Amino acid sequence: MEWHEIRDPQDTELDRLAERYRLHPLHIEDCRHRDQNAKVEETRGYLFAVRMIEQARAASAGKRADEAFYRVTDGVVDTYLPVLDRFSDVIDELEDQVLDRPTPEELARIFETKRNLIMLRRVLVNTRDLATHLQRTESELIHRDLWPFLRDVYDHVARNLDLVEMQRDLLTGTLDIYLSSVANRTNQVMKVLTVLGTIALPALVISSIYGMNMKGLPWIDSPHASAIVGGVMLATTLALLGILRLMRWF
Amino acid sequence: MEWHEIRDPQDTELDRLAERYRLHPLHIEDCRHRDQNAKVEETRGYLFAVRMIEQARAASAGKRADEAFYRVTDGVVDTYLPVLDRFSDVIDELEDQVLDRPTPEELARIFETKRNLIMLRRVLVNTRDLATHLQRTESELIHRDLWPFLRDVYDHVARNLDLVEMQRDLLTGTLDIYLSSVANRTNQVMKVLTVLGTIALPALVISSIYGMNMKGLPWIDSPHASAIVGGVMLATTLALLGILRLMRWF
Amino acid sequence: MEWHEIRDPQDTELDRLAERYRLHPLHIEDCRHRDQNAKVEETRGYLFAVRMIEQARAASAGKRADEAFYRVTDGVVDTYLPVLDRFSDVIDELEDQVLDRPTPEELARIFETKRNLIMLRRVLVNTRDLATHLQRTESELIHRDLWPFLRDVYDHVARNLDLVEMQRDLLTGTLDIYLSSVANRTNQVMKVLTVLGTIALPALVISSIYGMNMKGLPWIDSPHASAIVGGVMLATTLALLGILRLMRWF
Amino acid sequence: MEWHEIRDPQDTELDRLAERYRLHPLHIEDCRHRDQNAKVEETRGYLFAVRMIEQARAASAGKRADEAFYRVTDGVVDTYLPVLDRFSDVIDELEDQVLDRPTPEELARIFETKRNLIMLRRVLVNTRDLATHLQRTESELIHRDLWPFLRDVYDHVARNLDLVEMQRDLLTGTLDIYLSSVANRTNQVMKVLTVLGTIALPALVISSIYGMNMKGLPWIDSPHASAIVGGVMLATTLALLGILRLMRWF
Amino acid sequence: MEWHEIRDPQDTELDRLAERYRLHPLHIEDCRHRDQNAKVEETRGYLFAVRMIEQARAASAGKRADEAFYRVTDGVVDTYLPVLDRFSDVIDELEDQVLDRPTPEELARIFETKRNLIMLRRVLVNTRDLATHLQRTESELIHRDLWPFLRDVYDHVARNLDLVEMQRDLLTGTLDIYLSSVANRTNQVMKVLTVLGTIALPALVISSIYGMNMKGLPWIDSPHASAIVGGVMLATTLALLGILRLMRWF
Repeated sequence: MEWHEIRDPQDTELDRLAERYRLHPLHIEDCRHRDQNAKVEETRGYLFAVRMIEQARAASAGKRADEAFYRVTDGVVDTYLPVLDRFSDVIDELEDQVLDRPTPEELARIFETKRNLIMLRRVLVNTRDLATHLQRTESELIHRDLWPFLRDVYDHVARNLDLVEMQRDLLTGTLDIYLSSVANRTNQVMKVLTVLGTIALPALVISSIYGMNMKGLPWIDSPHASAIVGGVMLATTLALLGILRLMRWF
Repeated sequence: MEWHEIRDPQDTELDRLAERYRLHPLHIEDCRHRDQNAKVEETRGYLFAVRMIEQARAASAGKRADEAFYRVTDGVVDTYLPVLDRFSDVIDELEDQVLDRPTPEELARIFETKRNLIMLRRVLVNTRDLATHLQRTESELIHRDLWPFLRDVYDHVARNLDLVEMQRDLLTGTLDIYLSSVANRTNQVMKVLTVLGTIALPALVISSIYGMNMKGLPWIDSPHASAIVGGVMLATTLALLGILRLMRWF
Repeated sequence: MEWHEIRDPQDTELDRLAERYRLHPLHIEDCRHRDQNAKVEETRGYLFAVRMIEQARAASAGKRADEAFYRVTDGVVDTYLPVLDRFSDVIDELEDQVLDRPTPEELARIFETKRNLIMLRRVLVNTRDLATHLQRTESELIHRDLWPFLRDVYDHVARNLDLVEMQRDLLTGTLDIYLSSVANRTNQVMKVLTVLGTIALPALVISSIYGMNMKGLPWIDSPHASAIVGGVMLATTLALLGILRLMRWF
Repeated sequence: MEWHEIRDPQDTELDRLAERYRLHPLHIEDCRHRDQNAKVEETRGYLFAVRMIEQARAASAGKRADEAFYRVTDGVVDTYLPVLDRFSDVIDELEDQVLDRPTPEELARIFETKRNLIMLRRVLVNTRDLATHLQRTESELIHRDLWPFLRDVYDHVARNLDLVEMQRDLLTGTLDIYLSSVANRTNQVMKVLTVLGTIALPALVISSIYGMNMKGLPWIDSPHASAIVGGVMLATTLALLGILRLMRWF
Repeated sequence: MEWHEIRDPQDTELDRLAERYRLHPLHIEDCRHRDQNAKVEETRGYLFAVRMIEQARAASAGKRADEAFYRVTDGVVDTYLPVLDRFSDVIDELEDQVLDRPTPEELARIFETKRNLIMLRRVLVNTRDLATHLQRTESELIHRDLWPFLRDVYDHVARNLDLVEMQRDLLTGTLDIYLSSVANRTNQVMKVLTVLGTIALPALVISSIYGMNMKGLPWIDSPHASAIVGGVMLATTLALLGILRLMRWF
């Protein structure tokens, strides 16, 4: 088995290979184009696969070509698992923080995570389509004894995709917690403001009334005026607080 | 029929069995790996099934292998029903509490329930796929007279999944109630605050005006000054309350 | 045609019938189990159908078994129509009330209706699957001349399901109206509060200033002090109201 | 070609026709039933089509029966286009008004439009199913040379349905604009209220303090007391406004 | 290969061509109708394709008809890529601005972008359907050696559509950020208002009380009255701020 490592997509070595193995011009163009999605196409005499990673080289030394290919694909799929675990941790963390204290920083993190999940999902969907295609290819290039292994790769990708969907679902939940928490806190703030008003207003109104330069205000000439008026203020405030309590505000 | 109970996934007994029955290496790997999804695969001479529960042992003593298998699967499916009933109760309870009084604790419970439903749904989808696979398998290992029973298992799983979807729908409704209730209550709090302001402001403004160290304020020299000014305060407050009433605020 | 009416699911008559007609044990279990979904299964020599209603008895006296069966099914489907009409009325009513005045009572009614629609939808989906199954069954038990009638039943169920989906869509709209109306009203309340503040604050501030025990306040020694200060209060308030008007608040 | 125009569904002419052409009893029942969905069914010797409109009569004078039928259907489909154009205009208009000024009237219009689109979509889905059915019917009653025309009718209905889906999408956007605009405006109102408070509170607090019947207040005996205190009020207010400016509130 | 450029859809040249090549009347009608969706139809002897762009003319000089056709289609697909890149930039930009500062202008831009994406998606879905149709057409008019190129065109359209879906997903996220940010800011404004109230109310209430024309107020005759009362005001305010701090408001 030959292994050609071409790091520079402009390398003319690619043209030499194309000529030697009669590769299709579109495949060469795809190799030269960065940011290519994963795909597999079968043509006369060779399989064309995009987005294989090069650390798989060591693992596949001295193997049959299709085994090496399986190992490369399997290796790529395995690299997604720690990424998914990391996402799980981030979402758990976000959920706790957001219930406890919703800040704009958490909001930014939720959307960054969402963005990353959307990107990861796109890569995984491509990889799954590739794996489906490989399973269906009845090619001489892939020996039958590799089939259960390929089905296993497909299985792992499908499970990863399943996990990503579940995580998107949970992340949407996190955003809902965020919005509900903010709504709840605004409600709490409003209540505190109203309670403050409830405590202050009776005292303010009553003392303003007794601040008028006017004769004939009730109890004004009593020696216990301060005590009486103070009592009225306190009683009004307590009455209002009692009403709020009945309405179950706190 | 033989029944091998292996509790420790690292047990070398597993390797001996693998050798004796020529089990596929991928199946052994799946057994060693915890947190495996439910699945069934057919190979030469045996059926490989993951996530069977061990209390089914007693029930299947002295039965044919495929009957035992059916009983295990059926037992697993039946264990989901009380879980689903519990979810139904929780959602009913949440709905009532949330309409009556939306608190952050209810919010946390809604999202915990949502999370659990998402997890349960994932397990059930796996089990349904397993049941579908079993129904379609034309294997000598599963006798034809077991088919209606397997269809029955599939039926039960499908119905459970149906229930989970309905419960997710209802839970989303609970969250909507939560948000609507909070919005409603904030609205109520705002109205109370405004009514408080409506009652207090005329009195405050008028008494402040009469608190000015100034000559020439209306009625100030009248002996009935207090009564007149008090009347004006009351009239203004009542007029404002009347307007709010006309606007149907309470 | 025989008609066996068994009201008590524990009745041993059921066992006798099972024995006489060689009914499958799973079917007997389904009969004994309350809250069974609608379904139809064909076995050797008989059709097993769940959730048929007993008032159909009279209508089917003296008919062929499959005709009686059609009449029972058709009768069940027809009972859904007035239920759907009732839902339509409730949703129309809710829509009007919610736009006009969103209260927690309406909220509770929206969610109760939503819950009922979710339940009804589940029953209808089951009935539709049953009807689909009947249409596809190539059984000697159902004569060909009944086929257009069965297609007609299917047609009616499908249309009912269509209506339920449309009603869920409209109900979701009602909830959106609710939330939008509450948001709108909170906005209105805030505006009223701000307008109240706008009217009161200039008067309060100015009269407080003239309430200070201090020399040298402007116009304080003028004989027209009250008129001048009153004019300033009025002018400030009107200016603020003018600004709010420019910002199109009312 | 005969053309029978029956305006009254109870007309006995219908029964005579049924007898003469051996129409199926279910079709007669469908004719008698108002509010019937569009559908086409083929039986021995005739095609049964519901929801054809009668102004198509003139256009089809002197044509073959299937051509007349095509013209009727095509005419019906064409009548939807101006309706769809009208919806487009309404949605455009709503979008502008709602961004500019979200009122309860706009809200009511959004939901009325939504309701109408839901209804129209239901009619179009029925018509599309009818067109699909006609395309697939291999009947002697429809000549092969009409096929491209029927495909054309299907094409137009599908495109209309496409437009309705797009309009529902845009209308949902309009509702989102509404809610966002209201949230935004509430936020603006809150800011105005807070700015008002910011301007008034320092003056109120300071003048209340100097209104106390108390000796020893700072600067109280200075001849420049008014100027000093006024300056302090102004400085505090400006400082608060400066802080709000730094927090980018206006 | 002949190339007819007809700019005016009313040109009678179209009729001459129709006659010469026996084009179907419906195709001529489609050419005359502006705003036609992309589609391809095969008839005896020619392929009818709508929405091809005319700058492709130069590129296809001297080529076979099907190659020219491929080049036109490929050119059209390539023109979408810079449009999609531009959308990506706009969405990135919107996301940052909206998190930082949600204004009504950003809201208008979000909905304008959403509208454009909905339109673009519709065009792309049409183009994809066209490409699918071309791939499946087993026509003599399209030579087999063009097939991989047509599959490549399909691939590019599918990828573009994939990108549009991802961008709609991200844009919906942007709207969620907008609403969450506004809710958050309203919450912040409420807190500032409450803190302002917390600072001002104790001072206001206490100074109003000492403004009453009343004997017997505490400490009123003390020479340190001002200091004592000032201390009480300060202590109350600090106590309230401390409580808010404990409730983690700032």
